Amino acid sequence: MATIDDVLNAIDANLPASTQRLFDLLSIPSVSTDPAFTQQCLRAANWLADELKGLGYTAEVRETPGHPIVVGHARAKRKDAPHVLFYGHYDVQPPDPLELWEADPFAPRLADGKEGKEIVARGSSDDKGQLMTFVEACRAFEANGGLPCNVTFLFEGEEETGSPSLPDFLAKHKDELSQPDIALVCDTSMWNAKTPAITVMLRGLAQEEVVIRIASHDLHSGMFGGPVNNPVHALSKIIADLHDEEGKVTLPGFYAGVPEIPEDIAEQWRNLEFDESQWLADIGLTRVGGEKGKGVMEQIWARPTCDVNGIVGGYTGKGSKTVLPAQASAKFSFRLVGQQNAKAILESFRAFVRERLPADAKVEFINHGASNALQLPFSSEALSRARRALTEEWRKDAALTGCGGSIPIVGAFKRDLNMDTLMIGFALDDDRIHSPNEKYSYTSFHKGARSWARVLDALAR
Amino acid sequence: MATIDDVLNAIDANLPASTQRLFDLLSIPSVSTDPAFTQQCLRAANWLADELKGLGYTAEVRETPGHPIVVGHARAKRKDAPHVLFYGHYDVQPPDPLELWEADPFAPRLADGKEGKEIVARGSSDDKGQLMTFVEACRAFEANGGLPCNVTFLFEGEEETGSPSLPDFLAKHKDELSQPDIALVCDTSMWNAKTPAITVMLRGLAQEEVVIRIASHDLHSGMFGGPVNNPVHALSKIIADLHDEEGKVTLPGFYAGVPEIPEDIAEQWRNLEFDESQWLADIGLTRVGGEKGKGVMEQIWARPTCDVNGIVGGYTGKGSKTVLPAQASAKFSFRLVGQQNAKAILESFRAFVRERLPADAKVEFINHGASNALQLPFSSEALSRARRALTEEWRKDAALTGCGGSIPIVGAFKRDLNMDTLMIGFALDDDRIHSPNEKYSYTSFHKGARSWARVLDALAR
Repeated sequence: MATIDDVLNAIDANLPASTQRLFDLLSIPSVSTDPAFTQQCLRAANWLADELKGLGYTAEVRETPGHPIVVGHARAKRKDAPHVLFYGHYDVQPPDPLELWEADPFAPRLADGKEGKEIVARGSSDDKGQLMTFVEACRAFEANGGLPCNVTFLFEGEEETGSPSLPDFLAKHKDELSQPDIALVCDTSMWNAKTPAITVMLRGLAQEEVVIRIASHDLHSGMFGGPVNNPVHALSKIIADLHDEEGKVTLPGFYAGVPEIPEDIAEQWRNLEFDESQWLADIGLTRVGGEKGKGVMEQIWARPTCDVNGIVGGYTGKGSKTVLPAQASAKFSFRLVGQQNAKAILESFRAFVRERLPADAKVEFINHGASNALQLPFSSEALSRARRALTEEWRKDAALTGCGGSIPIVGAFKRDLNMDTLMIGFALDDDRIHSPNEKYSYTSFHKGARSWARVLDALAR
Repeated sequence: MATIDDVLNAIDANLPASTQRLFDLLSIPSVSTDPAFTQQCLRAANWLADELKGLGYTAEVRETPGHPIVVGHARAKRKDAPHVLFYGHYDVQPPDPLELWEADPFAPRLADGKEGKEIVARGSSDDKGQLMTFVEACRAFEANGGLPCNVTFLFEGEEETGSPSLPDFLAKHKDELSQPDIALVCDTSMWNAKTPAITVMLRGLAQEEVVIRIASHDLHSGMFGGPVNNPVHALSKIIADLHDEEGKVTLPGFYAGVPEIPEDIAEQWRNLEFDESQWLADIGLTRVGGEKGKGVMEQIWARPTCDVNGIVGGYTGKGSKTVLPAQASAKFSFRLVGQQNAKAILESFRAFVRERLPADAKVEFINHGASNALQLPFSSEALSRARRALTEEWRKDAALTGCGGSIPIVGAFKRDLNMDTLMIGFALDDDRIHSPNEKYSYTSFHKGARSWARVLDALAR
């Protein structure tokens, strides 16, 4: 009978073939936010379904109002085995700005990084490389007697746009998808290149685009400048007003539900090695910004934010244009923690904007999603087993961490399927996800697959 | 011997052919600010030189570091005739946003407007249609015994980008170009569709682009949001700080040199019919913005401004992107009046920006020109003659007005050639210059040519 070591050896032996499969998936430009790439999203979904079927599993590409969702099922070798739901997303962020990529973002390649080989491509780390670690672990079990757990696969294509179709999909397929005991999500980071991590806190995310229009059309800034209000100024005033001198968000009610950090968590965090100066240096900075008096880790894991993700108005080409713009718009996002209520915050935000509009200004709000923050119970048995499994693979205690990013699906699993989630991922903080030249450590890809093998094995004991 | 009436009749008879010539010029997309259109600018210059040569004048397309300048010379029939310098510009603004045009901006057409026929195309009013009124007046004189004045033609191709090559060009050709007694510029508006105007005050213009960079690259707003300062916020704070609650510009020293309006000018302006509500309604507004307590006409003719002409940062495509931008930029322009010093104001502005940068922010300033405001002496004999000539053509007293826009060349004529300028133009305030669907009244084109015939005749008496 095959042992876990046989499975791990199979992963090692198959690494070149696994890498080629990942490259095939990375070469599909499945950008979910841009309608021009709709067919590519479908291609990625079909590719994944074919992979699962190739492993002997059932798999279907199911339509949604947006991009399709892939659902697959695999049986464990044992009848009384636990049942896990594995989630990943096949959609990726737009590659813009393209001119900053060293090579085609959808022509994956192995490059030499400062800590070993890296897989460079859009989606290599977020999330195609990560989700394939799990698929490759399953493949290794199949070659060695079968899976230790029943597995339901759920691959969506709208994670980067706030998963608009998922809640309805979960509701529609609730009987099927609520069978597993726990969800496994591979979309988070390691603590560092040597220390695995399980993410137990996730910030929520509320996103709202604001469009302000004043004059009926763009005007000559000389012939009309003065008595005509400028929507760029109006929008800038709103953005400027959103933070005070201390770096705090000024939105009324914003900090309701923001918790103090519990002492045991604070203690664990203090004991983690974290080089704030290096973290800053890696992104070209020397000083901590944001809320005065609060450090990097605390702000990212446990404090809420308000950020403008994009702004545009008037002439933005080369040279100058003496235009008084008729319109300006900005995309706002709020990262949320603890018990902050995403919907209440968006309501407060809309009122805040409306109160600051000049005469004759019209405003349009475009929502891009709203999800609250999440917290996994520390007492979970699955958490303890997974932590031990990771510690065995990496020879270092797995850290229990927070994460600044949002994974709306984890909230949906809790809310709609009453299911907790183990967030285990192998990304690194310098993976440049959402940025040019995104990469995934080759070691993460390899040992990620090995980690999943150990976790599945541990959950089934 | 031919009389002025013969000349006017010739203009009337040749109107269809004149219109076709203008359409030929309008079909050349001579966008000066965008390097992609460099060859089109050269085409427009050659076209104009060929027109002048076709009238029997000397004409040359002369190179500059930017787009070429056309210089032509025409002799009057009388030896002791006065000598005028006629200036126009063949370059145009970019047509963006293209999707708001009802037809190709460079496929000129006659359309029915609310007050008669209109010539619709980018550049129809600013400035190709205007400059061709003068050329067509000259043509009519040539068919009727010759010009009453010696004429030097000066057509430039960089007016829309602040005329960067002109000062050096004037210096280099000073002996040739300083011969005329007065300059004539056709790049301004009528008071209304029935009332001609001579512009005696022009606002200056100082333009500066500001680029703020903080992190070394775009970051994930969840993984990095909080301790990393956002350049869009920094830029917005600067823009918001530039105006106070009264709509005044807060830049230190900004109002030094801004004059009170002299009583005789104020009296003339009060007697001009001006429907503020209609002016506002034409651009979709109901209330006067800008400086509190100041009306539309005063603000545009006699008050300085600060406007953002364009802003961009982060993701501006469809949907959302959870990015923390590394860079944000805005194009600022200051409209200046009286004795305000453009260069001093830009220096003050740069200091203002630098004082407001957060930690680790780097700023780049890109200048797009700086010119002070201008004022024509009311006692000028040429002004009196031109005013009478316009009154004869339009059967209505020509108004002496201010203009909110800048014509840097008028400052250069004064400074470099010691020459005053008569600014006479036939544009209308609703011509949508710099905006989609720019148009020029067919009446302006026709009676504009007749007006120039009368002005040249009056100056030569």
